[in-house]
Amino acid sequence: MTSTPLQSALTSIPIDLVCALDYERLAPQFMAPPTLAYIAGGSGSGSSSAANRAAFARWSVLPRILRDVSHGHTRLKLAGVPVSHPILLAPVAFQALAHPGADIDSARAAAAVDATIISSTLSSFTVEQIARAAGGPHWFQLYFQPRREATMRLLRRAEAAGCSAIVATFDAVIQAPGHAALRAGFRLPPSCVAANLASEPAASALSALADGDSRIFQGAMRGAPTWDDLAWLLTQTRLPVWVKGVLHPDDARQLAAMGVAGIVVSNHGGRGLDGAPASLDALPQVRAAVGSLPLLFDGGIRSGSDIFKALALGADAVLVGRLQLYALAVAGALGVAHMLQCLREELELCMALAGCATLDQIDRATLWRQPA
Amino acid sequence: MTSTPLQSALTSIPIDLVCALDYERLAPQFMAPPTLAYIAGGSGSGSSSAANRAAFARWSVLPRILRDVSHGHTRLKLAGVPVSHPILLAPVAFQALAHPGADIDSARAAAAVDATIISSTLSSFTVEQIARAAGGPHWFQLYFQPRREATMRLLRRAEAAGCSAIVATFDAVIQAPGHAALRAGFRLPPSCVAANLASEPAASALSALADGDSRIFQGAMRGAPTWDDLAWLLTQTRLPVWVKGVLHPDDARQLAAMGVAGIVVSNHGGRGLDGAPASLDALPQVRAAVGSLPLLFDGGIRSGSDIFKALALGADAVLVGRLQLYALAVAGALGVAHMLQCLREELELCMALAGCATLDQIDRATLWRQPA
Amino acid sequence: MTSTPLQSALTSIPIDLVCALDYERLAPQFMAPPTLAYIAGGSGSGSSSAANRAAFARWSVLPRILRDVSHGHTRLKLAGVPVSHPILLAPVAFQALAHPGADIDSARAAAAVDATIISSTLSSFTVEQIARAAGGPHWFQLYFQPRREATMRLLRRAEAAGCSAIVATFDAVIQAPGHAALRAGFRLPPSCVAANLASEPAASALSALADGDSRIFQGAMRGAPTWDDLAWLLTQTRLPVWVKGVLHPDDARQLAAMGVAGIVVSNHGGRGLDGAPASLDALPQVRAAVGSLPLLFDGGIRSGSDIFKALALGADAVLVGRLQLYALAVAGALGVAHMLQCLREELELCMALAGCATLDQIDRATLWRQPA
Amino acid sequence: MTSTPLQSALTSIPIDLVCALDYERLAPQFMAPPTLAYIAGGSGSGSSSAANRAAFARWSVLPRILRDVSHGHTRLKLAGVPVSHPILLAPVAFQALAHPGADIDSARAAAAVDATIISSTLSSFTVEQIARAAGGPHWFQLYFQPRREATMRLLRRAEAAGCSAIVATFDAVIQAPGHAALRAGFRLPPSCVAANLASEPAASALSALADGDSRIFQGAMRGAPTWDDLAWLLTQTRLPVWVKGVLHPDDARQLAAMGVAGIVVSNHGGRGLDGAPASLDALPQVRAAVGSLPLLFDGGIRSGSDIFKALALGADAVLVGRLQLYALAVAGALGVAHMLQCLREELELCMALAGCATLDQIDRATLWRQPA
Repeated sequence: MTSTPLQSALTSIPIDLVCALDYERLAPQFMAPPTLAYIAGGSGSGSSSAANRAAFARWSVLPRILRDVSHGHTRLKLAGVPVSHPILLAPVAFQALAHPGADIDSARAAAAVDATIISSTLSSFTVEQIARAAGGPHWFQLYFQPRREATMRLLRRAEAAGCSAIVATFDAVIQAPGHAALRAGFRLPPSCVAANLASEPAASALSALADGDSRIFQGAMRGAPTWDDLAWLLTQTRLPVWVKGVLHPDDARQLAAMGVAGIVVSNHGGRGLDGAPASLDALPQVRAAVGSLPLLFDGGIRSGSDIFKALALGADAVLVGRLQLYALAVAGALGVAHMLQCLREELELCMALAGCATLDQIDRATLWRQPA
Repeated sequence: MTSTPLQSALTSIPIDLVCALDYERLAPQFMAPPTLAYIAGGSGSGSSSAANRAAFARWSVLPRILRDVSHGHTRLKLAGVPVSHPILLAPVAFQALAHPGADIDSARAAAAVDATIISSTLSSFTVEQIARAAGGPHWFQLYFQPRREATMRLLRRAEAAGCSAIVATFDAVIQAPGHAALRAGFRLPPSCVAANLASEPAASALSALADGDSRIFQGAMRGAPTWDDLAWLLTQTRLPVWVKGVLHPDDARQLAAMGVAGIVVSNHGGRGLDGAPASLDALPQVRAAVGSLPLLFDGGIRSGSDIFKALALGADAVLVGRLQLYALAVAGALGVAHMLQCLREELELCMALAGCATLDQIDRATLWRQPA
Repeated sequence: MTSTPLQSALTSIPIDLVCALDYERLAPQFMAPPTLAYIAGGSGSGSSSAANRAAFARWSVLPRILRDVSHGHTRLKLAGVPVSHPILLAPVAFQALAHPGADIDSARAAAAVDATIISSTLSSFTVEQIARAAGGPHWFQLYFQPRREATMRLLRRAEAAGCSAIVATFDAVIQAPGHAALRAGFRLPPSCVAANLASEPAASALSALADGDSRIFQGAMRGAPTWDDLAWLLTQTRLPVWVKGVLHPDDARQLAAMGVAGIVVSNHGGRGLDGAPASLDALPQVRAAVGSLPLLFDGGIRSGSDIFKALALGADAVLVGRLQLYALAVAGALGVAHMLQCLREELELCMALAGCATLDQIDRATLWRQPA
Repeated sequence: MTSTPLQSALTSIPIDLVCALDYERLAPQFMAPPTLAYIAGGSGSGSSSAANRAAFARWSVLPRILRDVSHGHTRLKLAGVPVSHPILLAPVAFQALAHPGADIDSARAAAAVDATIISSTLSSFTVEQIARAAGGPHWFQLYFQPRREATMRLLRRAEAAGCSAIVATFDAVIQAPGHAALRAGFRLPPSCVAANLASEPAASALSALADGDSRIFQGAMRGAPTWDDLAWLLTQTRLPVWVKGVLHPDDARQLAAMGVAGIVVSNHGGRGLDGAPASLDALPQVRAAVGSLPLLFDGGIRSGSDIFKALALGADAVLVGRLQLYALAVAGALGVAHMLQCLREELELCMALAGCATLDQIDRATLWRQPA
């Protein structure tokens, strides 16, 4: 597209970088177009990642006046654990695509601003390395492996590394590539590996499909985890287990009944089913289905008022995925920390002007549905 | 528009051709602009073909997690006949416009991927030639001719050629030309003939209109088939007779009462009444009107998730028209086969992520209406 | 804007002029930009003329199949008078702006295709001249003059010229200029006069406004006609009196009670109150208010399916304003006649495909509301 | 953006300046891009100022015919005081950004056309200077100062200067900068000072934030006024006290109960909470909450029909902010006076065509909700 040479990651925050969203605006100066297309895009046509953003614009926040919020704060207990604000770093695979510091830098940034990082099974550094960088609380996102022993090894390593929660992801068993990334010629560079899996034996080749078998059903989905696998997982660890990738209230209800620690409402940033609804649109009915079960929200957060809206519609806290990559590309650990700080101040500003001194005051009545 | 020289049809599938929709994207490199304008456009202003596409965007598909779909498949019985997937090639006139292989290539492609082809009365090759190429099941689309004898001759030829069903089309008695095609200077080349009708005597010139007669009512519509003609047709063949071009539930109800084998919900790809609603919008009320009568859907299918949505809203299977022409232009029989295979895998992927192992699990509850 | 030299009006219809709407597309080649801006625009920002067009897109027409329409026609009785189709030429002031033939050419065109022309008080030729050109039925649109004697003189001239109806217009007492025309520098050329008023003595200068008086209320609106004036008019002529410019059902109800012959639902082509709703949007409630009182529709007709929709929503017939000017500019009388013929055939085509053999079959059930 | 040299303010009104909105159109020729970005923009992304404008387009005005409005006028009593029309100049900070004449010119313009000016705490001239220029009624907008003594000094000065009402603003305790202005490099020039505060001692530096304190909650919001402060204010003056910046009906209800003179429904022109709903959308429910309490409307007025709509939805009168700055930039006092006169005539025209002779006839029934 453009032949402008890419910039190196910044080492200080420029004065015109004034909001979290600016990292998205600046990212194209710091990432090769194919990489950007891969990170920015969703699966297939990208309809679901676009839907994620559009959903926020359907809500306004009603300002209130004259309320005393001078005692205000953003503290909450997340599944019983006190945290200073409701912003977590989402698990993101292959962060080295954005910056060589990758998850290590993200973890350092999280530590600097009291954020929890959820490192990915497909992280560019190992869970042990990330744990050392994190300092503060860090969680581990678990993809089921073709064999239970491998899944178990990942689980035990996360426990040993001091992760305080497991986030099992089930909504992207197949991640169809995004059309834009494919057309931009994106390929995962050979140097970009899943560090956690480097020590795993290569998966045995899939047995050949029988005649008439589907590459989807009998191929990719053969080893996909099921409710039984989740039940098994819950018996294998004493860590709280969250489940990520839920949009349907029936799935949420069943998870609550099984005793998960919480749910992450997410359409995988639009990287799962192309055509899935916006995470934000699905959030209220999931909240209605699960009562007071802790809910995280993931999908399209770009500003503090987006966070406010997600909390008002039922989330306890939110995950930040793409902004994390953009900030990493623009300014490494410094960028991620600054981006998180921007989000938090934007949230506080929105709360202050909406007359909410604490997060529990952010309820559905603080929002206004935009006319169509 | 562009003076870029056209490409010859490809003989292998390039790596960046990753989804069925890509054939629409690439078609302009393989077709002269007037031909493309004719094929891509609808009648008049093209409002109804645009509506067909827009209708799909109003629906999302709700992902489900942890369901075992490893036994999944796309098989169904279509009016009692087992087929391996719910994708048929729509009848399309004058396929030689897109590629010299025309219906022969389409038929070969259909055979290669277990798809049924519905050859058109206005096909570029004869129904006998197409039947030989098809190998597998092939149906015949019937336009009533000005005289019943001619209609009967077509019917008997289709029966003799082994067609397993008749699809009588009634929604485009008059096909107003599309404005875009007219302005692009499109003319049907003299070489582009309806092979099935070549052996028919030229229709006697229409008797002159009386003074005050309408070219529409007393001209074009004088010979148009009516309910009586359909009743007659049903007595003339033991083949199942489908009726194509239905949007109104009252028409559908009457057809069901007459004993048709099934109905094709279609606005003729927007080539009939300019201003007709999207086929997809009309589908649910047609389904509601006819109970379990087999329904095919035609109108705007460009991806597997489009197929999923049509099935969820009441169709048993779908027809693919424009994509067939685009794929034919891009890569002949190979293109059509690959396009069909893409659609099928996209459908399987959508099913897998929506937790549907079989087509009968795709119901209205799998969809989510997008907020306006 | 463009410095392309303008074309002279055509003397034959080119082959690529395929629909009534084409006259709008071609008009810019035949009219100076300021004139076009004046004719195409509405008052003020032009919001209401834009609304007129947008309203049609919210409705689709449901196709029907297999109905015998070979006896179809477009005949109707308009306030008791048989006419061959429901398309009238709207009264339009200063037609010489578009073509020197002006209302004379429009009248000849109307005669050629059995259309009724409604000549304007502000016509470029006199009502007597237009009457001679019209041949067939012609109506007279009446603007109240500052003094009743002048109004009476116009009325008597129309009666003497053989006009068969009077259309009193009340919705544009003040016609605020359109911003676009003003900025394009449009001025009414001195040669462009209201022929009917040439023999009238110049209106005495308005008495000066008192201090604090409003140029609107005590100025322009001082002489505006009121309900009493209409009552007076109804006593002064035995011709049927229609009232043009009605959107509010209460006004329509009152008019019906007063015994007008019919109502023209119109927002004056968006040239009256800038911000008025689309004529089409107001039509159903006016119809509901007046029972079977004859209703004409005026506002945005560009195609036969537009006419179909207006009839389905309650109109008995429609007026064509801007298209008349465009056709006049493109090809004079020939253009207007061809445009009217296109509209009629487009209407017939729409009727045929919607299964309506006659106008009275076009009811609300033939339409489909487009989803938002 | 553009390097076109800026024009000096005009000294006469050019002929193509035909409506109030034209001042917005012309302003870019008279203001440096960064200044324009600051004035035109809202806080943050500018979503709420855009929402203000979009809200008006959702309403149409229903024309009425044949009503006698020759006795029409725009007079009203505003909180008991007779005024000749319902258009006030909104308080706007730092008017010298637009024109050196600033609030003095605005005040002179207001006097010339019988408008009330509400001068800002942050005006470029002192309240005493503005009072002298105003001649007619002038109000004072009050921002609470960090210390009550300073607030009291401002109040006493306003009283002494003859201000007839106090407008206390509470909706922009924190005004987040607009992204567009920041990126355009806008900085308040050193010469641009708040004249009223020049004699105030510099505010003592804020005490340092404690560890873990929020710059928002414990910083900016520490000194923010609360309900107690408003209650105190109401005891300190005999002038009527209005409260500006209300969107929530509960806030409005509480204010009414406290005995304020009236409320200004406003989202601060989109300069407060980025993401607040349009002022116009919030207006009806505020009106419903407060019965007959006087309501001013502020937010997006650009034309007389906008004023009509705001009155129809519950306002008694309206404030004009950005247009005031644009008119000031284009033609100083003359521009502001002409802009106000345009608005008033546009309102009168809209009233006349809607059949409303007086403001009290403008009710909800005069409007029509545009279909989505």
